[in-house]
Amino acid sequence: MTEQLTDIVANLTTGENKTKEAVFVEAIDNLESSELSLLLESLPIAERWERWQQVAQDSQIAVLVHMRSDARQSILEQFSDESLHDLLKDAHADDLIELADTLPDSVVDAVLESMDDRQKQYYDQVTQYGNDQIGHYLDRSFKMFPETARVQDALRAIRKGIAPYTNHIYLVKRGVLTGIVDIDQLYQAESSVVLKSLMLDNLVSIQAGSDLLNATEKMEHCGFSSLPVVDDNNFLIGRLTLRTALELTRMNYESKLMATAGLNENEDLFAPVMRSSKRRATWLGINLLTAFLASWTIGLFEATLEKVVALAVLMPIVASMGGIAGSQTLTLIIRGIATGHISSGNIRNLLSKELGVGVINGILWALVIGLAAGLWFQSQMIGIVIASAIAINILAAALAGVLIPILLNRFKIDPALSGSVILTTVTDVVGFVTFLGLGTYLLL
Amino acid sequence: MTEQLTDIVANLTTGENKTKEAVFVEAIDNLESSELSLLLESLPIAERWERWQQVAQDSQIAVLVHMRSDARQSILEQFSDESLHDLLKDAHADDLIELADTLPDSVVDAVLESMDDRQKQYYDQVTQYGNDQIGHYLDRSFKMFPETARVQDALRAIRKGIAPYTNHIYLVKRGVLTGIVDIDQLYQAESSVVLKSLMLDNLVSIQAGSDLLNATEKMEHCGFSSLPVVDDNNFLIGRLTLRTALELTRMNYESKLMATAGLNENEDLFAPVMRSSKRRATWLGINLLTAFLASWTIGLFEATLEKVVALAVLMPIVASMGGIAGSQTLTLIIRGIATGHISSGNIRNLLSKELGVGVINGILWALVIGLAAGLWFQSQMIGIVIASAIAINILAAALAGVLIPILLNRFKIDPALSGSVILTTVTDVVGFVTFLGLGTYLLL
Repeated sequence: MTEQLTDIVANLTTGENKTKEAVFVEAIDNLESSELSLLLESLPIAERWERWQQVAQDSQIAVLVHMRSDARQSILEQFSDESLHDLLKDAHADDLIELADTLPDSVVDAVLESMDDRQKQYYDQVTQYGNDQIGHYLDRSFKMFPETARVQDALRAIRKGIAPYTNHIYLVKRGVLTGIVDIDQLYQAESSVVLKSLMLDNLVSIQAGSDLLNATEKMEHCGFSSLPVVDDNNFLIGRLTLRTALELTRMNYESKLMATAGLNENEDLFAPVMRSSKRRATWLGINLLTAFLASWTIGLFEATLEKVVALAVLMPIVASMGGIAGSQTLTLIIRGIATGHISSGNIRNLLSKELGVGVINGILWALVIGLAAGLWFQSQMIGIVIASAIAINILAAALAGVLIPILLNRFKIDPALSGSVILTTVTDVVGFVTFLGLGTYLLL
Repeated sequence: MTEQLTDIVANLTTGENKTKEAVFVEAIDNLESSELSLLLESLPIAERWERWQQVAQDSQIAVLVHMRSDARQSILEQFSDESLHDLLKDAHADDLIELADTLPDSVVDAVLESMDDRQKQYYDQVTQYGNDQIGHYLDRSFKMFPETARVQDALRAIRKGIAPYTNHIYLVKRGVLTGIVDIDQLYQAESSVVLKSLMLDNLVSIQAGSDLLNATEKMEHCGFSSLPVVDDNNFLIGRLTLRTALELTRMNYESKLMATAGLNENEDLFAPVMRSSKRRATWLGINLLTAFLASWTIGLFEATLEKVVALAVLMPIVASMGGIAGSQTLTLIIRGIATGHISSGNIRNLLSKELGVGVINGILWALVIGLAAGLWFQSQMIGIVIASAIAINILAAALAGVLIPILLNRFKIDPALSGSVILTTVTDVVGFVTFLGLGTYLLL
């Protein structure tokens, strides 16, 4: 958070209501709507609602659009259907697309009903793409001309104003994208020149059905501030800006980061306690099942544990080392999938590299831990048992760390979310079974 | 990875050398240099070096600049100092800044020696900023004019060509940034108009000493494709583009994601096995210390475990539930710090919310697990012992999950890196001590 915002938040969470009001009035004057969204998201729910009511009605939609959906919902659920409709009466199709998942269906339908046909058509066009496709995140503020139009026609339109991130105009022939023209070239050409003759040599565009990673990668590498987006028939339907690419990239990583703890990327920092507890309970419940599985595995060796209590003392070490080694491999693979470095072509090489690392660290830590445990419990045999279990578990962790995320990804399940639960189950069970099994065999 | 790249990688990791060469020649023709970097990073080291040698010498620097430092190093370490110098003889100061951390100091000095004074001066100017400051990531390809220059002067310079992401020119007075002019306005003005009269109303710029999060946030919110960057005396020294902001944002999140497993964001997917093993060994060693601490805690209750072996079977559940609950809070806070939502102003509110969630989930899971364990071991007392331990540990986890990252962040230690180790230590020790301690007290 910028220092400016930090100060504002500090003022809004302490102090009297009168001061807060004044502080927020100043904030409204000085901040962009997306900064106001960030600011509201950073406030506890009650305070957030108080400040929200100070936002002028004609900026409310812009602020809502930039909020993450959970925080936005905390505001929208205070509205009656009627006042929602009032709020949204001047919303554009763009806005409605962003807000739809936090609005009751009946409200969305009613707002659509009151829109003109072009807006409605646009809404339908965009929402046919899922939110994992770039078509869902289109920007409509581009300039488009027939190939046969002339420089003067384009300049006339441009002089009326262009949207941010615009360095190009798009050419179409019966709706189909055929070319891109640099606006600087327009200014430098004779006014009667036909636009087609100014087209850039290569036509870079994005398919609306592309997945987000593909599209944002293309956006980043192309060197343009925005790229045209086309449907399956190459009809020009919108554009993707570098700013949207930045937001999508951030959301992608946030979702990976949050998923490692079973959280959603939209999770509101100040979600109501009951709602937040309920969501987290699900994740705790899933993990409890794996913990019970691990306990059950241990229970199989109750008789051994009764006789050699040292095994009970040492067993968390075996599970923990496997879990840590596995999560290193898992995280490397999850990152590689997110950055686009991993594909079917290099999995085999990766697996053999990770197994190599597993062998080396397996042997190293087997020796260290075996020695330490042997000295601690004054038993060579205990040292041998734990050393073998550590080596086997670290190797199993490397194997699981590569295969689990790749299989999950192939089945379109986010490996960042479920990868670590499955991995921990594997390393716990393998760890306890080898350690207690070897202990039973060698120590009794 | 795009389908195109996936196919290329598949072809390059299998097949004969002759096919590989042909595939890569085609890739070079069709891909941007940053895509070539991604492609090379996705190849095993030996293959990477083979293909690298096919890259034309005049593109090599551009490809190296876009590579992550570890992968780049895997190539550069094949060079002798002499051939490095040859490679870098035409490098610009910009390139050298990017490459410096993967080059021997003597080579950097020698290359600097051969640069002209302006480039050398620029190098010194930028490298006085650390790589946690935006000044380190400047782009020099901006157009700057004296306030008193005229539209015709600016247009003459612009017609010679402008860099990507350029919609504005910058105005200076004795080197100090005084204004920004929209290029579209230039084209629409009379050629004799003084530039100063076309300045935008507000002058948005970034301080070179800003941290990365602040600067990229500003970049995202401002609606521009690039922003001017000034030093402490408001001298214009460069610009930040939205593309750089995108790259920095990604690196920031990658570093958070990788840090959760003790990895570096530059980690090469195909790092040599020995090097990779060595790095991971450090992390495994640190975690081993905490695992030994947990074991030692368990060891304190050896006498209890000998008598009630059920405690040994159940204890991983107590530790695991605390660890999972804590990591949910920890991850939420780490994300909040990364997105700029958390500041000193709202920590208190966050802590009380997370403790609230901890109380509810603590009670819920205490009941569930207490009941299950009581039934499993046919002992009401065991149920009571584990229920109390679970409730206490989940509450401790909530407290630790908020305080640990915030304290670490205050001491400028990345909470994503060390947060989870410290948290696990807390939840393991609290879990084992309360569970085995209560067990000793109530069951013996």
